[in-house]
Amino acid sequence: MTLVLQSFRLLIADLCQQFGMGHPGSAIGMSAIGVALFAYTMRYSPKHPSWFDRDRFVLSNGHACLFLYANLYLTGYEKMTWEQLLSYHSERPDSLCPGHPEIEHEGVEVTTGPLGQGVANAVGLAVAGRHLGTVFNRVGAEVVRAHVWCVVGDACLQEGLGCEALSYAGHLKLTNLTVIYDNNQITCDGSVDLTNTEDVNAKMRACGWDVIDVMDGVNDVASIVAALEQGRDPKRTKPLFINIRTIIGVGSAVAGQAVAHGVPLGKDNVRAMKRAYGWDEEKIFHIPPKVQEFYHHIAPRGEKYVQEWESLLNQYSSAHPKLAQTFKSRMTGSLPTNWQSLLPSPESYPTDPTPSRKSNNLTVAKLLAESPVFMVGTADLTPSVNLTWPDYDIFNPPDLQPIAGKRGSYAGRYMHFGIREHAMAAIANGMAAWSPGTIVPITSTFFMFYLYAAPAVRMGALQRLKVVHVATHDSIGAGEDGPTHQPVELAALYRAMPNILYIRPGDSEEVAGAWLAALSHPDGPAMISVSRHAIPQLTGLTRRDGVTKGAYVLQEVPDTEGKPDVTLIGVGAELGLAVDLAKELGARGVRARVVSFPSFALFGRMGVRYQRAVLRRHEGVPAVVVEPYVSFGWERWADAGFGMKGFGHSLPGKCIYGFFGFEVGSMAGRVVGFLGEWKEGRVGRGEFVEL
Amino acid sequence: MTLVLQSFRLLIADLCQQFGMGHPGSAIGMSAIGVALFAYTMRYSPKHPSWFDRDRFVLSNGHACLFLYANLYLTGYEKMTWEQLLSYHSERPDSLCPGHPEIEHEGVEVTTGPLGQGVANAVGLAVAGRHLGTVFNRVGAEVVRAHVWCVVGDACLQEGLGCEALSYAGHLKLTNLTVIYDNNQITCDGSVDLTNTEDVNAKMRACGWDVIDVMDGVNDVASIVAALEQGRDPKRTKPLFINIRTIIGVGSAVAGQAVAHGVPLGKDNVRAMKRAYGWDEEKIFHIPPKVQEFYHHIAPRGEKYVQEWESLLNQYSSAHPKLAQTFKSRMTGSLPTNWQSLLPSPESYPTDPTPSRKSNNLTVAKLLAESPVFMVGTADLTPSVNLTWPDYDIFNPPDLQPIAGKRGSYAGRYMHFGIREHAMAAIANGMAAWSPGTIVPITSTFFMFYLYAAPAVRMGALQRLKVVHVATHDSIGAGEDGPTHQPVELAALYRAMPNILYIRPGDSEEVAGAWLAALSHPDGPAMISVSRHAIPQLTGLTRRDGVTKGAYVLQEVPDTEGKPDVTLIGVGAELGLAVDLAKELGARGVRARVVSFPSFALFGRMGVRYQRAVLRRHEGVPAVVVEPYVSFGWERWADAGFGMKGFGHSLPGKCIYGFFGFEVGSMAGRVVGFLGEWKEGRVGRGEFVEL
Repeated sequence: MTLVLQSFRLLIADLCQQFGMGHPGSAIGMSAIGVALFAYTMRYSPKHPSWFDRDRFVLSNGHACLFLYANLYLTGYEKMTWEQLLSYHSERPDSLCPGHPEIEHEGVEVTTGPLGQGVANAVGLAVAGRHLGTVFNRVGAEVVRAHVWCVVGDACLQEGLGCEALSYAGHLKLTNLTVIYDNNQITCDGSVDLTNTEDVNAKMRACGWDVIDVMDGVNDVASIVAALEQGRDPKRTKPLFINIRTIIGVGSAVAGQAVAHGVPLGKDNVRAMKRAYGWDEEKIFHIPPKVQEFYHHIAPRGEKYVQEWESLLNQYSSAHPKLAQTFKSRMTGSLPTNWQSLLPSPESYPTDPTPSRKSNNLTVAKLLAESPVFMVGTADLTPSVNLTWPDYDIFNPPDLQPIAGKRGSYAGRYMHFGIREHAMAAIANGMAAWSPGTIVPITSTFFMFYLYAAPAVRMGALQRLKVVHVATHDSIGAGEDGPTHQPVELAALYRAMPNILYIRPGDSEEVAGAWLAALSHPDGPAMISVSRHAIPQLTGLTRRDGVTKGAYVLQEVPDTEGKPDVTLIGVGAELGLAVDLAKELGARGVRARVVSFPSFALFGRMGVRYQRAVLRRHEGVPAVVVEPYVSFGWERWADAGFGMKGFGHSLPGKCIYGFFGFEVGSMAGRVVGFLGEWKEGRVGRGEFVEL
Repeated sequence: MTLVLQSFRLLIADLCQQFGMGHPGSAIGMSAIGVALFAYTMRYSPKHPSWFDRDRFVLSNGHACLFLYANLYLTGYEKMTWEQLLSYHSERPDSLCPGHPEIEHEGVEVTTGPLGQGVANAVGLAVAGRHLGTVFNRVGAEVVRAHVWCVVGDACLQEGLGCEALSYAGHLKLTNLTVIYDNNQITCDGSVDLTNTEDVNAKMRACGWDVIDVMDGVNDVASIVAALEQGRDPKRTKPLFINIRTIIGVGSAVAGQAVAHGVPLGKDNVRAMKRAYGWDEEKIFHIPPKVQEFYHHIAPRGEKYVQEWESLLNQYSSAHPKLAQTFKSRMTGSLPTNWQSLLPSPESYPTDPTPSRKSNNLTVAKLLAESPVFMVGTADLTPSVNLTWPDYDIFNPPDLQPIAGKRGSYAGRYMHFGIREHAMAAIANGMAAWSPGTIVPITSTFFMFYLYAAPAVRMGALQRLKVVHVATHDSIGAGEDGPTHQPVELAALYRAMPNILYIRPGDSEEVAGAWLAALSHPDGPAMISVSRHAIPQLTGLTRRDGVTKGAYVLQEVPDTEGKPDVTLIGVGAELGLAVDLAKELGARGVRARVVSFPSFALFGRMGVRYQRAVLRRHEGVPAVVVEPYVSFGWERWADAGFGMKGFGHSLPGKCIYGFFGFEVGSMAGRVVGFLGEWKEGRVGRGEFVEL
């Protein structure tokens, strides 16, 4: 065993030395944890990295990625060849060993790096596993047994995101989750004591976790294995936190020092390590045959796991044919074939003004009720975001005492995430990462609080995970809650973010379009952004298929009336305002067409031909956008706009539009003024005018 | 006392009933806490709301703002007239009672609402008080004694931000901070047990806090006062957390229910409350004379506090004249008069390529060392962000054992925030909010992690607090850390955000300009965005005064050469690339001028005349931007651009620019192609072209 541990540490040291870059310390310090996990405890198969019931491993301290890469190599993941392992920090753009683990590569369950994300993802994976197991397992036929193992460093425990996720996991009693604390007491700045002197074990116990200490995490593989096995003990009632004392960069001259964290140990140091171990200091990248042999049992063991599971699945299919069919369908990750038909028809929506958050419920309640693929949750805004359906069940431990008459169940699909927006989004990522499409998580909170969740939403976009975020209270129309709750600039972030669809539908019909787009989106998450307040139903004008194109012509100026004077761009909650403005302009003799523009991302994907046909700017018709956000970014599609120049104001919804000049009469006057300047050439395309 | 409590509850109930909006439940539930704080415990003066040594009160559960407004009215804050109190949720745009407390108004220390922000601000206020007291107090002349009182609900304790801030405060042993937990066990969704079953007291103890329970927080004012007095006990060694059991909406028919949280109790319910109290149910907004009398002592008591403090300050000035002079200067909040001269001259910078994070240290180390107004901290990236100065002292408890030979002190000005980016920014806001300019906090982490901190950065911008954020590793040049660390879309958020200056300086000289702009900025925070990697020094071209204008002409095409063909816009770490590209284009016969464009916000504030003179787009010269961010937002100032179309990639810094096409030869070809299309009118102004 000593040889195995030494070999691992030296491999890491050499890998960082190669190009003079990398994070050696933690990976070296965790050598024994690696052996315990990958050689002894975890149920997985290197030859079947996508095996549905594999244990999930998350390296939340993603900078220690070499820990994972080296273990993938040693245990026989086929794509992780020796050449690939050596490509860490090389100039190879096709390296499977990027600076942080990336979900695209075999053996990597989630992309980690930004601290705290991984542990929250692990909670999400455990939620997924617990839910699927509860729904599909039958006595003697447990087709979902996978355990989730997550390694964290000091950082993930300090990050607020980690605190939120661990607290929620303790509440949920996710006994299929084990968190392994690589407790080396060192961060970039030096001793953890510089900044954190809390009693971590006591804190974890207070959060509903069991805690086990392992005092020698450097060499005592047996104790680590014993602790891990307790993590998987079916008699557990709480998730397990294993506090393992390690030494960063152990064995080197900088052992236990911050400098071991993010820079190679140094040529001489690595040589000295080898000498101290009694190894040939001239040899680099040497893995002794005995060490290679040590790992030889893992691939066959994994094959056996998979074969056993497949025969279990066969038995299960015989004993529970209908359930097995559903299970297999969930494994393929496709949406129910009839999902589009579960959305209401245009004529079934109300015709009175309706808050689009309500439209959202009208649109998806049936889909959510009938499609078990969806799990839905909110960060303590259930009464505000309207995402429940009749008889929804709560995902909560069954032994929690019933609340308001409802008993929790792991089969439940509605999650009360608590006031933990960031964890909500990161946990949703983990749920989506279980297996593509098996669970489609839906989160919801006020749009403004998706700024709290933004780092996790970004990680979902980066990983192209299918998650739908429903952001309510999305404009100054949120009203009296004031500027802290009015998201004037946040859309810029989500419109600029790659892979995600940010969609602001303008009425019920457009909400249906938003869901069509979101659930058909192949490239990642979507955010559907809806209003708190009632907005007009533009029945007969709005079109769900138009939404899926990002923007479309809502009202054209008939050819008989000559060339239009202006295109008004309406968006989301203020689409009706653009329609009213067009009418007012018409009364003043201005020919105004109206374009509904719910999504930059979708419109940006359309060809130039379509874009020009919708906007007609190339014909010299200026476009004026109406949206009470800062105009930033609209310059690509508009020549002028009514927007916000600063933060909002606390005023009731009915007054706030007027307070900020969003009043049809005065707006029409300003459009007329702008068009005069436009015709005289005093303002021109490329110089966006704030109206 | 009963009458006082009843009166307060009914006042809140009536205020919400008035316009059928508002958050009554928590404010009603906290009536006894209000009396204990405002009538008995806090040292403050309603007639002197800006008294320097007043106790600071933070309502972290800002939706309960009526709690604060009613107490401000009852205790005699002059601007909080009866008419003003009644303006809560009215249509008055000049209401002093917005939906969440706002810092602009007397008696409000910080704007709160987004949950968790207030408690982190309170930690910052306590840091400021502890630091100032340590620096300025002398035996028998304690000119800074102010205590910080913060009320939190369940939400602030669940939010990751709250967890981060409370953990750090426990570590810091901020005994001048008392957190009062309005423990009503109800959130929007219902019972807290739905989502959180942790042992809050045990968790707080694990984080280094003392904990006191008050079991009857509804009526037992005496016990609350006794607990609060323990909070201020000078013999404390830890901050105090007071867990007070309250009942949301107490006294009403919806007492203890979630529905009491965010909607008025209902007309009949309020009548029933009045009947149950034995009050006249017909009377609304009735405050009995006895209750009014109860509060009469507070204003005179406050006057006395201020007078005592002023005479103390007089004694202090006699006994410690020099120190008193400094203290008074700090109270006025102006920067040292010579601060600009503490920045290096242009010729003192190195001429070799220099990472701008290093330029940053070269620029401000002297200023930081010599100006005690600055407190600096980083979220565990001290070795990376380069913001220390020789012999810097660490703000840490003095009884913490020395780390790496350094002993902490509350006089220290360097803060190790830990891996807590969000708390760092929110704590900085609190430090800045102590009193305008008395402390100017500087925070630092990787640019990408300012997404974690974004909600707090936004709150600083909303409150116009002077904080400087130094964001390092700000481009794909961050290299091998990969897409999780490469901020392709984040600048869009900070460029769109009102009040904040986001500045990307292009070399050392521009870093000096960034600091000139940041510290002269009257309207809020600034973010200076610098590179990890070495970038060329454009000595003789870059100008610090140019940076303060947001953009300026770096290289003009001489009139003798005719009209320019193109303006290249260079930004930050890639400014040198734009200069190289201009040279390459010159070799190909293309007349390219170069504009350095470090800040949208600053350039946006300049007049159209200056903007046109810099860009010359109105002359028909197209502008092409070079910045490896998504182009979103550049459409306002440019016609085409080299940007990112997706997330980044893990590759060493030296390869990554080429990988994404940022290579002068190929870029020049693409510019030539674009100019051809431009001249032929196939692309035109207003249709941004991605190159």
